[in-house]
Amino acid sequence: MISREKHDRMANAIRFLSMDAVEHANSGHPGLPMGAADIATVLFTRFMTHDPKKPSWPDRDRFVLSAGHGSMLIYSLLYLLGYEDITIDEIRNFRQLGSRTAGHPEFGHAAGIETTTGPLGQGIANSVGMAIAERILNARFGDDLVDHYTYVLAGDGCLMEGISQEALALAGHLKLNKLIVLFDDNQISIDGPISLSDSTDQCERFAASGWNTMRCDGHDPEAIAKAIEAARASDRPTMIAFRTTIGFGAPTKSGSAKVHGSPLGKEEIAGARKALGWNADPFVIPSDILDDWRLAGLRSAKERKAWEERLTAADAETRGEFERRMRGALPESFDAVVAEYKQTLVAEPPKVATRKSSEMALEAINAIVTETIGGSADLTGSNNTKTSQTKPITPEDFSGRYIHYGIREHGMAAAMNGMALHGGIIPYGGTFLTFSDYARPAMRLASLMQIRSIFVMTHDSIGLGEDGPTHQPVEHLAALRAIPNHYVFRPADAVEAAECWQAALKAEKTPSTLALSRQNLAPQRLEHEEDNLCARGAYELAGSEDEAEVALFATGSEVEIAMAAKALLDAAGHPARVVSVPCFELFEEQTADYRKAVIGKAKVNVAIEAGIRQGWDAIIGSEGVFIGMTGFGASAPAPVLYKHFGITAEAAAAAAQKRLAMLG
Amino acid sequence: MISREKHDRMANAIRFLSMDAVEHANSGHPGLPMGAADIATVLFTRFMTHDPKKPSWPDRDRFVLSAGHGSMLIYSLLYLLGYEDITIDEIRNFRQLGSRTAGHPEFGHAAGIETTTGPLGQGIANSVGMAIAERILNARFGDDLVDHYTYVLAGDGCLMEGISQEALALAGHLKLNKLIVLFDDNQISIDGPISLSDSTDQCERFAASGWNTMRCDGHDPEAIAKAIEAARASDRPTMIAFRTTIGFGAPTKSGSAKVHGSPLGKEEIAGARKALGWNADPFVIPSDILDDWRLAGLRSAKERKAWEERLTAADAETRGEFERRMRGALPESFDAVVAEYKQTLVAEPPKVATRKSSEMALEAINAIVTETIGGSADLTGSNNTKTSQTKPITPEDFSGRYIHYGIREHGMAAAMNGMALHGGIIPYGGTFLTFSDYARPAMRLASLMQIRSIFVMTHDSIGLGEDGPTHQPVEHLAALRAIPNHYVFRPADAVEAAECWQAALKAEKTPSTLALSRQNLAPQRLEHEEDNLCARGAYELAGSEDEAEVALFATGSEVEIAMAAKALLDAAGHPARVVSVPCFELFEEQTADYRKAVIGKAKVNVAIEAGIRQGWDAIIGSEGVFIGMTGFGASAPAPVLYKHFGITAEAAAAAAQKRLAMLG
Repeated sequence: MISREKHDRMANAIRFLSMDAVEHANSGHPGLPMGAADIATVLFTRFMTHDPKKPSWPDRDRFVLSAGHGSMLIYSLLYLLGYEDITIDEIRNFRQLGSRTAGHPEFGHAAGIETTTGPLGQGIANSVGMAIAERILNARFGDDLVDHYTYVLAGDGCLMEGISQEALALAGHLKLNKLIVLFDDNQISIDGPISLSDSTDQCERFAASGWNTMRCDGHDPEAIAKAIEAARASDRPTMIAFRTTIGFGAPTKSGSAKVHGSPLGKEEIAGARKALGWNADPFVIPSDILDDWRLAGLRSAKERKAWEERLTAADAETRGEFERRMRGALPESFDAVVAEYKQTLVAEPPKVATRKSSEMALEAINAIVTETIGGSADLTGSNNTKTSQTKPITPEDFSGRYIHYGIREHGMAAAMNGMALHGGIIPYGGTFLTFSDYARPAMRLASLMQIRSIFVMTHDSIGLGEDGPTHQPVEHLAALRAIPNHYVFRPADAVEAAECWQAALKAEKTPSTLALSRQNLAPQRLEHEEDNLCARGAYELAGSEDEAEVALFATGSEVEIAMAAKALLDAAGHPARVVSVPCFELFEEQTADYRKAVIGKAKVNVAIEAGIRQGWDAIIGSEGVFIGMTGFGASAPAPVLYKHFGITAEAAAAAAQKRLAMLG
Repeated sequence: MISREKHDRMANAIRFLSMDAVEHANSGHPGLPMGAADIATVLFTRFMTHDPKKPSWPDRDRFVLSAGHGSMLIYSLLYLLGYEDITIDEIRNFRQLGSRTAGHPEFGHAAGIETTTGPLGQGIANSVGMAIAERILNARFGDDLVDHYTYVLAGDGCLMEGISQEALALAGHLKLNKLIVLFDDNQISIDGPISLSDSTDQCERFAASGWNTMRCDGHDPEAIAKAIEAARASDRPTMIAFRTTIGFGAPTKSGSAKVHGSPLGKEEIAGARKALGWNADPFVIPSDILDDWRLAGLRSAKERKAWEERLTAADAETRGEFERRMRGALPESFDAVVAEYKQTLVAEPPKVATRKSSEMALEAINAIVTETIGGSADLTGSNNTKTSQTKPITPEDFSGRYIHYGIREHGMAAAMNGMALHGGIIPYGGTFLTFSDYARPAMRLASLMQIRSIFVMTHDSIGLGEDGPTHQPVEHLAALRAIPNHYVFRPADAVEAAECWQAALKAEKTPSTLALSRQNLAPQRLEHEEDNLCARGAYELAGSEDEAEVALFATGSEVEIAMAAKALLDAAGHPARVVSVPCFELFEEQTADYRKAVIGKAKVNVAIEAGIRQGWDAIIGSEGVFIGMTGFGASAPAPVLYKHFGITAEAAAAAAQKRLAMLG
């Protein structure tokens, strides 16, 4: 039992570390850690199951600080609880170059940071993915190995962001009862009181989607504990609205927007020291308080050991599979299975859309890579993301491998990130490429966090036809290629689709987007290659470097146009070669020699892609000829549109010949 | 009074036009128009105030089809009501190249289409903006000139998208009682029954944000009328959940996902004809039914005339101001005011952040351009979007000119679009540039619709410092430049900020984004130029084309680095010139001669921008030197980051000299 006095001093340790670190950095957000310190103290001293000495213990509870600007809360906790990554020097170096204590919590910087947060609403949606992962792995591996809670601390900002609605509606639907949202209901946003911009009753709103909800004083430790206890016992996900005072303890600024995102200043901090009876110097935690915190850090060590014993006692197959999946390693037979599948394709080359060949590849892959969890934002039949192995999960049965995410692209992408972060699962999910814009903030975070989320984006150009310009991605390939550490694959046929999937699954530290056609495409890869040619990003598909006057570069559905243009140019006495470029980023990673050889030295370089030119100059040079789009699309059947926008073999061949003539 | 029989036949006219057009196009979505036909018929025959003969009458009610895939609903209505743009031939040409009847409703294709919809959730958020515009203009011009309703038809998809939460919470907070959401609650999504992915009680959810809500049978005309009548009388915005059968009338497919997005097939349509007693051939509306519809189209002609008389009777100043604003024309003195303001800047050049100089420009502009409505997604003090003229609107008082949008970037951008579409208002709204990702789907639609929404995006690079990589835009300039018809401005100092604002406000058919620094920047434009140099996209800032060995191109905060690099190069005996490039897109619009002259013929081109290279090759060539970012940023003070990432005058000068040496 922790006395009120002890509780207060432990919570104040968080408050002063936060105030002092922000003051020292002269930058940061003291308001949230000070306001939520009581909630966090109760959670970590009485409920959180985790082990600072084994921070990656798979069955630990997850804690997500969705309100990432309050990063000093989590840094304080990790230091106080005894996580080795966060020393007092790291706290002193808050927000400095190379420190683990970045302005917002960055996944990978320190153990105990379960996800990168800062862009509001992402953490709450990640946590839904984590809670889904927990249930799915529980269904597969049982209570002995997987049985933990996901706690997420969210602020008004998180709940005002639209993504929170997508996340909470999905969680309520799936009855994720081990997900507990701790809402830091401080009634203050940056512009001032929440009443400037919102009148929502958040409890009613969550209840409308099937959540268990409670209201609670966020500064009363016993009330907090009671609420969390009740939440843990619920058969539904729980949101507890904790009424708190932002910047609790700051004598003149608490309860106002002034305390949200700026250092408090020396005087105010001195006042807080007085008000809260805290006499220690900055960055000094009195030894008795530190001892109490470190003791709290040991509270689950026994449980962790018992869990390890259960894992050891499990049958070899279960244990092997569990450990492999948590390690993120693919099955050993993976490459062989893909190679074998590619051989079947070459034996009987299918003329199908790449969305279909993606499904075919997944059918082969899902049979052995049992950790894939598919899904779609309500476009299952269009995205071709469902295979025979993937029955949908339901609120009553999580033994499936497919998620009907609903019309929630953003929530889907962020939940996928949560699953990837949880471990044991490789998530893939689909929508139309144009709606990558909806999912983009989460896709960016996957790149920043270096996690393996795989986005299946079909209907990848004007080739989708009649749905028109709102649905036709024009700038989306360029915009996704702009995101650092993100593989954008655009396969040209079924063999390339298989290779792109193989490369995406093997990229443990890089998320991928597969851009796939709605329309059928002729097979291009007619001979078997054991190697994954797409994994090199670009490769010569036809013709030869030695003799070519024209080099034609293309991706996806335009590769067949490039091949037809080559035939026209060859016939006209201008030998041409074709380079397929399924992934700019992987091509960029190749050696300079390989790149040079693939780009070649033709007199004229032509790129063909049914999108904008931006980004292509790096391959064809700024003097290169580009056949593609310069503005939005239109509503009409696909063949009409390709002709209308001049993306044809004839146009490409003519442009190449015109350029050849100009060069003389 | 319309008898039930007549109502049914009128509604069936919508159903058969929709079925037949989709069948003829062999593509489209018959389910929604068939299911919502009764609601639409009641709305347009009994409530909508509009005039097909004067479709742009400013005080008309607005009707938004948020569920844009059901486009045949609106095309059918416009044809039946007598809007000249939509003839029966247009209906026959549904989804064909050049028709006004695109796959999804496209703003600008035909009068009566108030906004482009298709990407789900956008329409409902647009309609919130329209309803805000109505209240703001009402507060300015009175009931005599502005007093109308905004109706929006939304489906499950719209309500599952996160943007709908941002929109409805804002509307509930502002008590937009003339906004009425007609929810086509058909319980079906593409993947199947809604119960696959959602359990939300939408009425409870809307009520949680202060809405008036009702449930109603969507196929009972009298019940529909009663519900709409009650909604019109409410002091709060209303959402009516109309229980409907998707594809109503299709004998075997109605009520299922099969009827959502594919042609019904000849047999099913024949069955529908039988079931609904419809004997007319495809595209033929029996003359009595067409007469009834055309009569309904005339129902507000008198009101429209009375309104015109009131406008004529208004005092000259009010009338002139109203007409000017609805025309979208700026005040005549606009250019002179900006020029005068620029002179004051040159007289005493301020060293401020461009977010601050944007505020200063707005302070001058807002004084005379009274139609600007500012706002921010809860970053008012950071975005510097508020000026002395812009007091916030509140639920009780819409006479203000500023909107606290809350932490709702996406909802803000879409509401801004709604205001721009409504007319009489030029909306601008702020957030951090990195969160343009959240707003992106709406920003794209602004570009597609060719409307004047102005996005103020501050904290535009690693120059924001300690908040770290989640908050540091790296790829966002490139990603926004990728969107067709979107001006991305990045001013270098206060004069450029004024010029960029001037250009943005004058671009009636192009939305703009202003990317603005958090950090202070040295003034660069020290002499007064009457002309708007930024309006040309790029211009020579220093040095001269004749002698330069090195040309340095830069934008925004990196222009001062380019100037310092020039000094270093000049001193080293390598004369350099500096070109400021505040807007790629406007530069692209200039004559080839101007472009050539500005780019020049230096031996070495160097671009400096604290973002990625993508897009720059079009200016500096693929052989050009780029000084910028290649990956995500980091958390540290800004000057440390610029040095860490090598974005310095020294690095730029050294790279130029190295290249010069290589060239010999």
